[in-house]
Amino acid sequence: MFTSRHEVVGEVVEVGSDVSKFRAGDIVGVGAIVGCCRNCHPCKRDIEQYCNKKIWSYNDVYTDGKPTQGGVASSMVVDQKFVVKIPVGMDPEQAAPLLCAGVTVYSPLSHFGLKQSGLRGGILGLGGVGHMGVKIAKAMGHHVTVISSSDKKREEALDHLGADEYLVSSDATKMQEKADTLDYIIDTVPVFHLLEPYLSLLKLDGKLILMGVINTPLQFLTPVVMLGRKTITGSFVGSIKEIEEMLEFCKEKGLTSMIEVIKMDYVNKAIERLEKNDVRYRFVVDVAGSKLDH
Amino acid sequence: MFTSRHEVVGEVVEVGSDVSKFRAGDIVGVGAIVGCCRNCHPCKRDIEQYCNKKIWSYNDVYTDGKPTQGGVASSMVVDQKFVVKIPVGMDPEQAAPLLCAGVTVYSPLSHFGLKQSGLRGGILGLGGVGHMGVKIAKAMGHHVTVISSSDKKREEALDHLGADEYLVSSDATKMQEKADTLDYIIDTVPVFHLLEPYLSLLKLDGKLILMGVINTPLQFLTPVVMLGRKTITGSFVGSIKEIEEMLEFCKEKGLTSMIEVIKMDYVNKAIERLEKNDVRYRFVVDVAGSKLDH
Repeated sequence: MFTSRHEVVGEVVEVGSDVSKFRAGDIVGVGAIVGCCRNCHPCKRDIEQYCNKKIWSYNDVYTDGKPTQGGVASSMVVDQKFVVKIPVGMDPEQAAPLLCAGVTVYSPLSHFGLKQSGLRGGILGLGGVGHMGVKIAKAMGHHVTVISSSDKKREEALDHLGADEYLVSSDATKMQEKADTLDYIIDTVPVFHLLEPYLSLLKLDGKLILMGVINTPLQFLTPVVMLGRKTITGSFVGSIKEIEEMLEFCKEKGLTSMIEVIKMDYVNKAIERLEKNDVRYRFVVDVAGSKLDH
Repeated sequence: MFTSRHEVVGEVVEVGSDVSKFRAGDIVGVGAIVGCCRNCHPCKRDIEQYCNKKIWSYNDVYTDGKPTQGGVASSMVVDQKFVVKIPVGMDPEQAAPLLCAGVTVYSPLSHFGLKQSGLRGGILGLGGVGHMGVKIAKAMGHHVTVISSSDKKREEALDHLGADEYLVSSDATKMQEKADTLDYIIDTVPVFHLLEPYLSLLKLDGKLILMGVINTPLQFLTPVVMLGRKTITGSFVGSIKEIEEMLEFCKEKGLTSMIEVIKMDYVNKAIERLEKNDVRYRFVVDVAGSKLDH
């Protein structure tokens, strides 16, 4: 079993008698959600990530009253509704970060009509979600600008991830030059930041898509939004249906994620490194005892 | 000539030799905009209100270097591109507030896909734009809730404007009861206000559409937006094309605006009353010397 906690890939070892989607031996994935009410409006629309009764795949309580442990377990039992097949030919460990980070970016681009090629997108912040943002947007045929607070990640963004441009947000002249040029910005910054500079980069009808859960209020001036009919919005992981669609898309485009595969006994060290932001871009744990190991 | 400054209705007295759209005797309207560059992306898409070189119909400078005076003039010369025909059968003085306030509401409902009947809308603030919001949303077949900071306008909203519900924003219990019920809110409040309570009223994918130019930053928390994939956006008057479409819609639905027609010599008194918010909902000046007077 491979995992980055809430992005789990493994082999099916056993199925219940009602299971029709999978059989033993299949390589499958589980994302951030393992339960939902199935009756509410979002559930009926197959966007169960917006169900108020969804159950997280980790740090939550399952219907049987037991805690959910994500992928940090030697095995897991999951309802087939929340399991996706990893396409044949895709590396299981590569697939793990797609199940949450990947779909977190894919879902809003798909939902807000931003999938067609030729668009100009911005990726604000280059962490786990940001790096998938660059890769997925490039695979969609977009012109991608990485926006960062410093020059540190320029080489990474342009040479390793294949972004087209790199913009330092403190460079007022360059920011001004790029005003009104982007169709959307995926904003992955998880702490307070001013929205004004990024809203200004957007074209008429441009969309600022927030991905960071921030408990300090963000601020904006209404004229910047109104005079360009701009949109501030956000979205939240993705549905099983969107994960399936995205995996097919990634397979077709040959898209891979950048990961560092580690063994279970490296986890404490990995957590130390995470605290220092020292990872490109996701640790994937090859959980001891995984069927995939032999 | 009838006017509420930047919403002008009058009779065509003379046309230039290249004018094909109108002839003398036509009752026509002019809204907030009388010029644009005609070459930029918004101009080419017929949304000239977003052109950076647009010319306001008042307090601006026209291409000839002279000030624009809106409707507060005995006559005006306007390029036919910025003139709309008032549909036969519509009262000219009734039409005036539609040319800006009306289209300001109609444009975003149309643009953001919120025209179909059966939607549940909120109108926040009941002034010139808010009252048109209630009328237009009702004419579209929406269930309309007026949201106000006090109980003062309840009767007005329900009995005179035909709203379906009235919600006082300081009533925490009722606000909680109505959480997740609205498809959109037209927010006409022109001063700082917290967005949280209104974002909470929106359903999944609901839209908060800002109409107030506010120079103090507004604030929101990202989880409220992300967890309901909600949208904060805004829009700005409307195009000539949208005004034409809206006038036809209003005529078809028998929609009228609520106005108080005054003579030119009442203008100073009217301004005093405006400062006290003492108008339901627009003063329309029957400008002295208007061709419509005889």
